[in-house]
Amino acid sequence: MKVYIIGIGLIGGSIALDLKSHFREAIFFGIDTNENNLEEAIKLGIIDQKATYEELINADLVIVAVPVDVALVILPEVLNAINDDALVIDVGSTKFPICEVVANHERRRNFLATHPIAGTEFSGPKAAMNELFREKTNIICEIEKTAYKQQEMALNLFQKLGMRIRYMDPKSHDKHIAYVSHLSHISSFMLGKTVIEKEKNERDIFDMAGSGFESTVRLAKSSPAMWTPIFKQNKINIIETLEEYILNLTHFKDLLQNDNYDEVFNEMESTNRIKEILK
Amino acid sequence: MKVYIIGIGLIGGSIALDLKSHFREAIFFGIDTNENNLEEAIKLGIIDQKATYEELINADLVIVAVPVDVALVILPEVLNAINDDALVIDVGSTKFPICEVVANHERRRNFLATHPIAGTEFSGPKAAMNELFREKTNIICEIEKTAYKQQEMALNLFQKLGMRIRYMDPKSHDKHIAYVSHLSHISSFMLGKTVIEKEKNERDIFDMAGSGFESTVRLAKSSPAMWTPIFKQNKINIIETLEEYILNLTHFKDLLQNDNYDEVFNEMESTNRIKEILK
Repeated sequence: MKVYIIGIGLIGGSIALDLKSHFREAIFFGIDTNENNLEEAIKLGIIDQKATYEELINADLVIVAVPVDVALVILPEVLNAINDDALVIDVGSTKFPICEVVANHERRRNFLATHPIAGTEFSGPKAAMNELFREKTNIICEIEKTAYKQQEMALNLFQKLGMRIRYMDPKSHDKHIAYVSHLSHISSFMLGKTVIEKEKNERDIFDMAGSGFESTVRLAKSSPAMWTPIFKQNKINIIETLEEYILNLTHFKDLLQNDNYDEVFNEMESTNRIKEILK
Repeated sequence: MKVYIIGIGLIGGSIALDLKSHFREAIFFGIDTNENNLEEAIKLGIIDQKATYEELINADLVIVAVPVDVALVILPEVLNAINDDALVIDVGSTKFPICEVVANHERRRNFLATHPIAGTEFSGPKAAMNELFREKTNIICEIEKTAYKQQEMALNLFQKLGMRIRYMDPKSHDKHIAYVSHLSHISSFMLGKTVIEKEKNERDIFDMAGSGFESTVRLAKSSPAMWTPIFKQNKINIIETLEEYILNLTHFKDLLQNDNYDEVFNEMESTNRIKEILK
């Protein structure tokens, strides 16, 4: 099997590492605009060698793991370049624009739109790790638009990665992921910004930061190059979540301002059930 | 040594567990309004037996680890009840109101106001754990108002717990802790609320929640009984942090609305340095 990974970062690299352990005879090729990433990925044993788009004609499997704005540009090119039996999988955090851009491509049936809900706040080949996807959810969109043989191949791969599969239409994916992922990133980035602005002259203050702050602000370490295009592509949904979040924060502030501590208590108590929900 | 722990929860219980391992001859007494907590703490080996306020006259050390509204009420009573050589330590998340309530007490010099920056989102005796405080920061306020002998005893205890000490005046503590702790809790609670409200009829949606959401929403599992009085006592500072946080979120939303993605990128990139700050 010849596997081509386009974008050798946290996600692309981690998929390669896991697949390598299951398909020992496979050869892994890397394509990345960043030459350092390619060199590093070879050194780390993530890929066997670099490749070019022209070579994609030889691919059995292509994983597209690039920022979602880049995915919109390269996915049609990748589909142009492959052979009739290849499977192309993208793993971006938005699904509607991506499904739309390939909707009428003559090789649409070679493509599968997915979103593995896995990752860390780090990026680049060094961030790649084994078993990143084990017991994580993979959202698959428009499965019916992928040819049966390619579906089967993809599901076999995801099973080997240890993923749970959920099927969803791209619009619903983008709407819900705005709440459970994109909003968290913004809330975390703005929390980090608020605290840094306030405490800029008092570095020592961060000695006071405990594990609670660290956990809440962790996502503010994420890559702006990855997240800016996600926010752009999912703008409408994200603005909706932000408006609701700001309303809830403002309401909470008003409760404090009005000394309505019974309601302050109730707000927190009713949110405590996130414990059970996340179990 | 006779140690009395008032409030056998996560913090009080964890202090007891650590001190037990260093002072094997010490006897640990528990005082708690919740009888179940006392029974459980005895079963878990956190305390040796229950006690009453009358017995505090025998105490060498009293740890007050109750919600901060309760601390305001009981601290003067505890100081009334102890002997001249005892040390009383409180561990609450607000320091100005607590220092104020004991300011003119005739036993002020037996008291030390502290805030160990350590914890989890769980509460009760079952949440207590060994080594919770190792390499964590302990903020000590108004050290000069504590008698030298009691200072020495306290610093010896904190050294055994493995804590780093920072000295700070109570007003500064409350102001800064609003940013690095209290605001995080509210941002997390309101994130949880926003998502639960939206997704209340779609439990499956939480299958889409990854480790990022879990980390950002973790503090929304915290105890409302503990946090409501903290927010009440630190209201002015917290409202200030909330106003800045809401402004920053609104600005970010406006950038999205105006398709100003260069600035969206810059906002995130400049916040990325939280990585270095938290190192």
